[in-house]
Amino acid sequence: MIKVGIVGGTGYTGVELLRLLAQHPDVELAAITSRTEAGLAVSDMFPSLRGRVNLCFVEPDKAALDQCDAVFFATPHGVAMAQSPALVEAGVKIIDLAADFRLKNLDEFAKWYKIPHTATKLLDEAVYGLPEINREAIRKARIVANPGCYATAVQLGFLPLVEAGVVDMDHLIANAASGVSGAGRKAEVGSLFAEASDNFKAYGVAGHRHLPEIKQGLAQVAGREVGLTFVPHLTPAIRGILATLYARVTKDVDVQKLYAARFAHEPFIDVMPAGSSPETRSVRASNMVRIALHRPQGGDTLVILVAEDNLVKGAAGQAVQNMNLMFGLEETTGLTHIPILP
Amino acid sequence: MIKVGIVGGTGYTGVELLRLLAQHPDVELAAITSRTEAGLAVSDMFPSLRGRVNLCFVEPDKAALDQCDAVFFATPHGVAMAQSPALVEAGVKIIDLAADFRLKNLDEFAKWYKIPHTATKLLDEAVYGLPEINREAIRKARIVANPGCYATAVQLGFLPLVEAGVVDMDHLIANAASGVSGAGRKAEVGSLFAEASDNFKAYGVAGHRHLPEIKQGLAQVAGREVGLTFVPHLTPAIRGILATLYARVTKDVDVQKLYAARFAHEPFIDVMPAGSSPETRSVRASNMVRIALHRPQGGDTLVILVAEDNLVKGAAGQAVQNMNLMFGLEETTGLTHIPILP
Amino acid sequence: MIKVGIVGGTGYTGVELLRLLAQHPDVELAAITSRTEAGLAVSDMFPSLRGRVNLCFVEPDKAALDQCDAVFFATPHGVAMAQSPALVEAGVKIIDLAADFRLKNLDEFAKWYKIPHTATKLLDEAVYGLPEINREAIRKARIVANPGCYATAVQLGFLPLVEAGVVDMDHLIANAASGVSGAGRKAEVGSLFAEASDNFKAYGVAGHRHLPEIKQGLAQVAGREVGLTFVPHLTPAIRGILATLYARVTKDVDVQKLYAARFAHEPFIDVMPAGSSPETRSVRASNMVRIALHRPQGGDTLVILVAEDNLVKGAAGQAVQNMNLMFGLEETTGLTHIPILP
Amino acid sequence: MIKVGIVGGTGYTGVELLRLLAQHPDVELAAITSRTEAGLAVSDMFPSLRGRVNLCFVEPDKAALDQCDAVFFATPHGVAMAQSPALVEAGVKIIDLAADFRLKNLDEFAKWYKIPHTATKLLDEAVYGLPEINREAIRKARIVANPGCYATAVQLGFLPLVEAGVVDMDHLIANAASGVSGAGRKAEVGSLFAEASDNFKAYGVAGHRHLPEIKQGLAQVAGREVGLTFVPHLTPAIRGILATLYARVTKDVDVQKLYAARFAHEPFIDVMPAGSSPETRSVRASNMVRIALHRPQGGDTLVILVAEDNLVKGAAGQAVQNMNLMFGLEETTGLTHIPILP
Repeated sequence: MIKVGIVGGTGYTGVELLRLLAQHPDVELAAITSRTEAGLAVSDMFPSLRGRVNLCFVEPDKAALDQCDAVFFATPHGVAMAQSPALVEAGVKIIDLAADFRLKNLDEFAKWYKIPHTATKLLDEAVYGLPEINREAIRKARIVANPGCYATAVQLGFLPLVEAGVVDMDHLIANAASGVSGAGRKAEVGSLFAEASDNFKAYGVAGHRHLPEIKQGLAQVAGREVGLTFVPHLTPAIRGILATLYARVTKDVDVQKLYAARFAHEPFIDVMPAGSSPETRSVRASNMVRIALHRPQGGDTLVILVAEDNLVKGAAGQAVQNMNLMFGLEETTGLTHIPILP
Repeated sequence: MIKVGIVGGTGYTGVELLRLLAQHPDVELAAITSRTEAGLAVSDMFPSLRGRVNLCFVEPDKAALDQCDAVFFATPHGVAMAQSPALVEAGVKIIDLAADFRLKNLDEFAKWYKIPHTATKLLDEAVYGLPEINREAIRKARIVANPGCYATAVQLGFLPLVEAGVVDMDHLIANAASGVSGAGRKAEVGSLFAEASDNFKAYGVAGHRHLPEIKQGLAQVAGREVGLTFVPHLTPAIRGILATLYARVTKDVDVQKLYAARFAHEPFIDVMPAGSSPETRSVRASNMVRIALHRPQGGDTLVILVAEDNLVKGAAGQAVQNMNLMFGLEETTGLTHIPILP
Repeated sequence: MIKVGIVGGTGYTGVELLRLLAQHPDVELAAITSRTEAGLAVSDMFPSLRGRVNLCFVEPDKAALDQCDAVFFATPHGVAMAQSPALVEAGVKIIDLAADFRLKNLDEFAKWYKIPHTATKLLDEAVYGLPEINREAIRKARIVANPGCYATAVQLGFLPLVEAGVVDMDHLIANAASGVSGAGRKAEVGSLFAEASDNFKAYGVAGHRHLPEIKQGLAQVAGREVGLTFVPHLTPAIRGILATLYARVTKDVDVQKLYAARFAHEPFIDVMPAGSSPETRSVRASNMVRIALHRPQGGDTLVILVAEDNLVKGAAGQAVQNMNLMFGLEETTGLTHIPILP
Repeated sequence: MIKVGIVGGTGYTGVELLRLLAQHPDVELAAITSRTEAGLAVSDMFPSLRGRVNLCFVEPDKAALDQCDAVFFATPHGVAMAQSPALVEAGVKIIDLAADFRLKNLDEFAKWYKIPHTATKLLDEAVYGLPEINREAIRKARIVANPGCYATAVQLGFLPLVEAGVVDMDHLIANAASGVSGAGRKAEVGSLFAEASDNFKAYGVAGHRHLPEIKQGLAQVAGREVGLTFVPHLTPAIRGILATLYARVTKDVDVQKLYAARFAHEPFIDVMPAGSSPETRSVRASNMVRIALHRPQGGDTLVILVAEDNLVKGAAGQAVQNMNLMFGLEETTGLTHIPILP
């Protein structure tokens, strides 16, 4: 059994981690920390876990996290950066669901997150946890940076095209819509039901934090800089991201075959038949990503549709997938739940 | 392995049955029938099942249902009544998720369902599949009538009070709200998103088909007729029923203790601490029922709150629970999924 | 033109007041105050008002409210109590949308609102602003206490029965569901989209602040204390309240006729044909209340259904209706918008 | 008073027309036809209109539509084409909210609507009813083709750029999301609440009927063919369209100024300050369109955001705007309702 600790489990990625880990056959939940909620039973905050998770939140310094085999950070950025070095030193494997170890460029990190990086050595070592790209490195990693939700969908959607070098990489467009849980379990007016329901809007058009993360990932694959316009939107759903990607073809290629081949052995990527339209609910509460490819009117613009659950493959599920890899388990262990529809 | 057939799997109880059975360790899905969809891959209709359910819908007469160990009817009423006798004869165990075998009184059946009953012998034998009341009979049954969604919530909520005989049984009130999936996957204007969203209404006030079912169940427990006013409502949610029950106390009793004792060994009933307010999402996609008890201002009116997922404990989950009992399996097998929150 | 000031216009009742008053033919919006948002253009907070409301929020002490003809308080409780006496002294007519002047009993006020009342003389004088009961008194009032949203629906629904004395007044039951805007535009976790969507729950079962208000109103009409069990629920809609009321008949009466007669001349009460089921969306964004009456299975329990928009007849619309009466205008002026459906 | 008839008023554009026309100061509703609902009171189908619209649906041939001054067609395509010629002959002005008179090219019409056009002379004469482009022609028209909902948003959003010729017109991208009312009040599984709620998907990627309409309109303005990739999406909202448009700049220009100047005198176009993000709810139930302009990271890709209410400016509101123009009324008459927020 892998002894697991969770730092900061009061948000949506936290409760989703708890749901997945409490049903994981090889995991023992050892501790969950929260400064503000110390003493509270986890199941008092999340009654869906009544009878299934019997832990209480504890003060971070009383959690004996260094006795764990693995620690997940489901915290605001800055926390993992501060606490990880000592834990890694103590032999604990780290999976950070926040952004602390995602951007390799220190200036970019400081620009987008407004704080300097304080664990640069660990940052060098950290592996970006997108198994479809970095599987082997993840297996050996001591610390994994779990990708952002949009970043996962957009990178996976562009990946085969960028690897194959068959599209104009200076003018990629990623139009994406996310459910409101993506904003987290924070008391903010903009996320209120009466604000977000029966409404649709773009946000962060001038610049979203997942933009440099996506560009870094695609550049690494492409071996060159890529140009990307990324416009996220808020849709009145709890969960789900649909990324609608646009790329101009520069070299003729059978796109359907390209994707089918690239993802043939990926347990969590479903390349749908040509002409499909993946719905976010078709992956609800599961770790699956569904992708469909279109070339409208036979023009030179490709449309790639990518559906994921932002809290699972976009956060907690991918984190568990990374844990499975880091501990030599079957990659799909504890992640085979069938999506909830309707 | 239990070889299972499903008759009529194109509705919401059908796809929910498929989700649960496809993940059930002791079940082999053998056949699923649909006259209108014969030939279609199940996963083309329900892409959430892609890679998990590889069956196609088949014509009823080609399904070899008599070779199954168990057959579930997820059909409009009338179908199970017609097909069950031959199957039972052939040694197949039947679980009917429709209403054909719920009402023991033939006149009541004809009154509410507008057709005469044509399998009255089997009706006599059929066991009403509410395990919390009929567990032992279910274990031995050849045919089980799976209760209605409202009927499950309302009966479980009143059960301890009626058994104990401590409330005015002539004036019970059941005010309940259901998500729209309760109306089924039927193309009807009233269930359209643009009609049901951002709206709330009562319906069936003059008389809902679950009324005689609830009254029959409670009368059996009480050993006398009960008076019940039942007002269902439609709430803009996909899943979930909350029943808010009102009963006038006639004998003093510690209600919290009464319920805690009555349901102490029930795996799917969670009696919450006094003062709680169960939310439907706390049981979303799970077979749990959560109950909380209130006596506002210390008056003589009790308020009992009951939350269930109408598609799970209110339909497919309870059906699997009944199957587990009928086949001597651990009652909770395949039904331990943690609710999806948020 | 009536010169109008609004104190505290940053919530949902505030923006709804602005919508109604900006389209009111006899009103000039003079000032709107907010300590926290002073300087901000109202239409920057509420873009729906761009080009229609050109005011900025101002500091309360710079608003010259004493120069207004009417001032609306759309504030948390306690504010109107503090500021009204001086304004009334200055000849300004006051409509308080908060609770400061609703409860006549000082102990009850202190018990439910946790502060002592500091304007008891004005409280004595204040008229409870339910025009269907107090129309004449409102016309002459200097200060009106605008009723609560639930309180409006529940009182109007029970009114004819209680006036006629034909039901058991010791055991009234009001089961009501409200859209999430009823919780206000406050950043609270419980009102987040990801918490309130696809969910249904009761709340405040032990005691809701509208309970004493309803009991006071009905008692006044009945000439005696009434017993009421009131259970509010949260439904995933933006607007709308549906009250489902239960009362035991004690004297035979043609209920449909009773209601039709009682409300025959009420411009905002629509008594629907027998057997109807009013939907909240049928009054969305309008000042109408729709009522339907049922006596299921001919038993002795009446079911009264009442639909209102909690922000209009349940708040801002009723406030404007009261203003119209106080200033001798046609009662329906500026309040004849047709509901928005779908 | 303009005597108005409506053909086919049982859908969402129908009820929205009724809402607007019943409050229009210069309109008398004379007749509304429906073959299937003849005899039914309009307000029995749409209780929001109780007390406001006292018409019953009548058989088309009993409606005396030729006695009307104006007739609106809110019908499936094909109907207006069949009935308009006789009405125009009789001196009735026609506004067709369906697609019969939108596409000037007969082959395109036959290709997208699967029927041949049978009123080609009237088609030649018909004016495309986008007042921001065709205002003067509309004033003199006998028959107006009211634009599609997406077509309105996308054309208005691209209009200034295309007129100015400052973007790559071979590779325009229109990514749009619509509320579910856009699918109409038709009983279809895909529009059910339990299908469309908590979900997000693209549809019609291979080709949507508004594509040729948009291309025709932009080509007319550009004086050349344009290349457009159009991907509509379904968002779980009742009303609202947000179009997110992408265009590559080819000539430097101050886009904010360009739009501000182009729409300076348009009563229903609100060019928001740079950096804004229009929400669909900011125009809910109103005829306003809000537009905001972005040039992310100073790159060469422009992002234009356009919010409209698909049932108002995207259908019934624009139809009334056209009627106002055709009858020499002030263009905004009856269309100044403030949006409903929240």
